[in-house]
Amino acid sequence: MSVEKQALVLPALNPETVAARTSSAYPEAFKALVAGRSKQALGDVLGLKNFGVNLVKLAPGAYSSLRHWHRRQDEFVYVLEGELTLITDTGEQILGPGMAAGFPAGKPDGHHLINRSQAIAMYLEVGDRLPGDSGSYPDVDLAFEQSSGKAVFTHKDGSPY
Amino acid sequence: MSVEKQALVLPALNPETVAARTSSAYPEAFKALVAGRSKQALGDVLGLKNFGVNLVKLAPGAYSSLRHWHRRQDEFVYVLEGELTLITDTGEQILGPGMAAGFPAGKPDGHHLINRSQAIAMYLEVGDRLPGDSGSYPDVDLAFEQSSGKAVFTHKDGSPY
Repeated sequence: MSVEKQALVLPALNPETVAARTSSAYPEAFKALVAGRSKQALGDVLGLKNFGVNLVKLAPGAYSSLRHWHRRQDEFVYVLEGELTLITDTGEQILGPGMAAGFPAGKPDGHHLINRSQAIAMYLEVGDRLPGDSGSYPDVDLAFEQSSGKAVFTHKDGSPY
Repeated sequence: MSVEKQALVLPALNPETVAARTSSAYPEAFKALVAGRSKQALGDVLGLKNFGVNLVKLAPGAYSSLRHWHRRQDEFVYVLEGELTLITDTGEQILGPGMAAGFPAGKPDGHHLINRSQAIAMYLEVGDRLPGDSGSYPDVDLAFEQSSGKAVFTHKDGSPY
């Protein structure tokens, strides 16, 4: 048995044993864009509370999220497999395995990743959990505010979806 | 030119462009154990403040750190290359590429990684930066307390090194 396949016990974790979530909390109109996204919440399974770490897989055509930014929380991504297009105000950049990106809290530069390749792409995403976060989506009529640890989505005028 | 080698601009980052640190803040008696360790502070270069992300390389024989735990800060590691031995109260486990581990704040289970292989091993480490952290080293007469963002090392009775 290779070392990669052995049974690990906490505090170690084989991500293959972690259930994947494909659902999205987005309003209905935006769910299709992330339908090819799967997330495994490694940090939660490991008992971490101060930040989240997800192992994310994007099928060809899938988005990581709508282009967005956070007022209080930092974000980091590290590409493990495949090829992803990062879109920000800077333009488009293609990230392959071993490449990283980071999005400091409060910088209103909307960002997301799109898998425009023909193969699955995989990356790690990290985000902290400082309370009182909120953010916005520059390309669509959507904003979010954190409430009890969950993102509540509204139109940009604050009216509910 | 492969996508991996292209020039990236912030908020994207090619880790190959980030300077590596091999120094250690440990008291002199413990520095040799981590002499084969190199860290690239990806999160800092990306402008992140709420957590740190380091790309760490351990030469054969090198330790990630002395076995330690944190009172306030969570830690996460994800192995990218090579083979590392994780040592905790649970015992020893070998982690290969794609394996993870996490160390929740306040759990007094000292942990570290040792590269007992003949090849370089590489991993990502993430740790938050909640203020007021402190911790201890179960195997040696060492403790730390955070002061102005830096770890101050003492003997376990609180006397300075």
